[in-house]
Amino acid sequence: MDPVKVGVLGLGTVGGGTVNLLERNRDEITRRAGRPIDIVHAAARHPDRPRTCSTDGIRLTYDAFEVVDDPDIEIVVELIGGDELARELTLRAIDNGKHVVTANKAMIALHGNEIFAKAREKGVSVGFEAAVAGGIPIIKAVREGLVGNRIEWLAGIINGTGNFILTEMLYAGRAFGDVLAEAQRLGYAEADPTFDVEGIDAAHKLTILASIAFGIPLQFDKVYTEGIGQISIEDVTYAQELGFRIKHLGIARREADGIGLRVHPTLLPERQLLANVDGVMNAVMVNADPVGPTLYYGAGAGAEPTASAVVADLVDVVREFTLEPENRVPYLAFHSHFLSDEPIAPIESVNTAYYLRLEAQDEPGVLAEVTRILSEAGISIEAIIQKQPAAGAETVPVILLTHRVLEAQMNSACTQLEALEQVHGSVTRIRVETLA
Amino acid sequence: MDPVKVGVLGLGTVGGGTVNLLERNRDEITRRAGRPIDIVHAAARHPDRPRTCSTDGIRLTYDAFEVVDDPDIEIVVELIGGDELARELTLRAIDNGKHVVTANKAMIALHGNEIFAKAREKGVSVGFEAAVAGGIPIIKAVREGLVGNRIEWLAGIINGTGNFILTEMLYAGRAFGDVLAEAQRLGYAEADPTFDVEGIDAAHKLTILASIAFGIPLQFDKVYTEGIGQISIEDVTYAQELGFRIKHLGIARREADGIGLRVHPTLLPERQLLANVDGVMNAVMVNADPVGPTLYYGAGAGAEPTASAVVADLVDVVREFTLEPENRVPYLAFHSHFLSDEPIAPIESVNTAYYLRLEAQDEPGVLAEVTRILSEAGISIEAIIQKQPAAGAETVPVILLTHRVLEAQMNSACTQLEALEQVHGSVTRIRVETLA
Repeated sequence: MDPVKVGVLGLGTVGGGTVNLLERNRDEITRRAGRPIDIVHAAARHPDRPRTCSTDGIRLTYDAFEVVDDPDIEIVVELIGGDELARELTLRAIDNGKHVVTANKAMIALHGNEIFAKAREKGVSVGFEAAVAGGIPIIKAVREGLVGNRIEWLAGIINGTGNFILTEMLYAGRAFGDVLAEAQRLGYAEADPTFDVEGIDAAHKLTILASIAFGIPLQFDKVYTEGIGQISIEDVTYAQELGFRIKHLGIARREADGIGLRVHPTLLPERQLLANVDGVMNAVMVNADPVGPTLYYGAGAGAEPTASAVVADLVDVVREFTLEPENRVPYLAFHSHFLSDEPIAPIESVNTAYYLRLEAQDEPGVLAEVTRILSEAGISIEAIIQKQPAAGAETVPVILLTHRVLEAQMNSACTQLEALEQVHGSVTRIRVETLA
Repeated sequence: MDPVKVGVLGLGTVGGGTVNLLERNRDEITRRAGRPIDIVHAAARHPDRPRTCSTDGIRLTYDAFEVVDDPDIEIVVELIGGDELARELTLRAIDNGKHVVTANKAMIALHGNEIFAKAREKGVSVGFEAAVAGGIPIIKAVREGLVGNRIEWLAGIINGTGNFILTEMLYAGRAFGDVLAEAQRLGYAEADPTFDVEGIDAAHKLTILASIAFGIPLQFDKVYTEGIGQISIEDVTYAQELGFRIKHLGIARREADGIGLRVHPTLLPERQLLANVDGVMNAVMVNADPVGPTLYYGAGAGAEPTASAVVADLVDVVREFTLEPENRVPYLAFHSHFLSDEPIAPIESVNTAYYLRLEAQDEPGVLAEVTRILSEAGISIEAIIQKQPAAGAETVPVILLTHRVLEAQMNSACTQLEALEQVHGSVTRIRVETLA
């Protein structure tokens, strides 16, 4: 069969990786897809700059609109990142009747509802496997592999930079800022690492995962997001003493008041598989009826793993060329007229267990006061550790593990704890999940 | 749209689970698939026996051929197990122009080449996601999610009973026979547990995984298979002392002389994710270019997880109804005219590291003899442990870890070791893999 003609927007890390992959594995891909996939037109900001891929046979331009308007192109691969320009180009490509494949999580999380509506109108496919967890085929697993399931919750390590930082803090005992600087040197973290460490990148991905899991529209603005910037080496160490590891998780779960969507540091029991996903690797655990827990692990970023996902989408789109849109896999897993308006549960109504650390004066009766306040707030304590005071310190660290409690109750208890004269500063709070 | 009409062969564990799932999650499935899926005709060996599912609205028969010949049926789900009758029914269903979904790994491993040839001739789909690793969407991940990759190797815990036994030996210190008896009581193992503990079931699954990973025909008879019946509690304990866990793995890897296909007990470093997959759970690790290592984890058996995979296949088949066969996902991932005749490497040409245990007389010079023999065979030693003799014992256990060596070299060295007067009995050999 004739080669499929593809246009690429952006020849940076992922764009270059995609060009290289289609060239290097051309034979394997053709044997599976039944026909070759050729990149024939590409837009790069600086078309004359040296790059990581060969551009032989590719028409190069600096004008991305030239690619989306090229009548020869059947599929546009959007790899420029950012959200506004990417959105504009994607909508124009769709308007021109082209299928789209993208690795852009921000664009899908923020503008996906609009993009899918337009794509539905024009009858084209939009693939976004590369937008979540890089090379792990997690979109495919949830949308298709678990199609018979009612999904109860999912929880994932979906930002490699954050996981690299937490892993180094644990095994090398290094401080947050120190590891972050190294991640930037190694090219894992962005120059502005806000998206990684504050959880915004993870929230984009969680938004997408939650939509395809629960059949709800994309609602990025409703994700509760906490970063890892406040995690200290002490917390990592105390968590380890208690048999836990700290991971930055995105969690989507059916709660009493709707679907809870949250990104925050989380203590996980050390024997959990997710607790053992280290370095820049990603993993997503999904708990569903009837399959039970399943987990998907792999590289969450980087040119090559992301290119793997882009090519998987390209082949899927090619296979669907002649399929009527209503028989394709729906963009958000559920057919649009069946999307649910189930509310997003406010964080105050979410139930989790807690790790608490407070600095208390080293004198009798403090522990009695602390436990009284928690008990009166209806919070059960699972474990308490009171450390020895450091030489010359006037306070001792007290670490508590609680049973599950409503967020609102914990807020009120912490206010009271912080008001105690014997407690100095604020209470450090980290949620605990057993994922059972 | 009209409901899809499905016939089921077999209303045992998985059949009952599938009927229940389609009923319980009917709303979720319809919202995703776009149309309901109805089981309208089912064959059971004893149609009047009480069962785990409701059969309201299902025409029941004891004659499976009546279902495959029913002109109303669009998809036949084969869940009777075994291989000969299942093969006959499947071929007849295909001959009648029906699509087939099966959970039958023995049938696919032994007769898949014939079945897919017939299906290609008749232009029908054959889904077999449920045949490997139960509810884990591993067939989909490898065939579609990694479509752009050149797969280097895969390794999996793909028999839940065997993994349950090894896990209990490790954590509860119980002997093989004791745990096996419990697995049978709990219904994990078959009454005749040969398929589980001798690795035949795992070899069926590995045959299928290797075909879709490497684009080779199904070749069950070429899989090298070793069971776990010889694993002693001592080996489990010594492995742990050395920082390893013993798992029963199926491994398919590109070797110098072709593709190596083998099922055997394996020492894995304890920090490996696969080493931490416990109990009846399954997991498959795939290493591929460009995605790198990915891992897929979940329940490998049982009515509900297997039903999850059956329904995923049903929905895929329904979506493909109107697709020309050449645009469907090929049965064995690669289009049939592109299947490769790459040879299967004989076990003698496979390279692995080894754990060796021998019983030696407690006298000077024995270790020197042992290390001399290994050194002369070109085998490098990574670690040696010589245990204290048990009270009254005339031998001491000597445990060695070697570096990677050609199987043929190890065979010759072991013959020499066993010929030593100071070495009693035979040498226990277990392969070691680092999966890196």
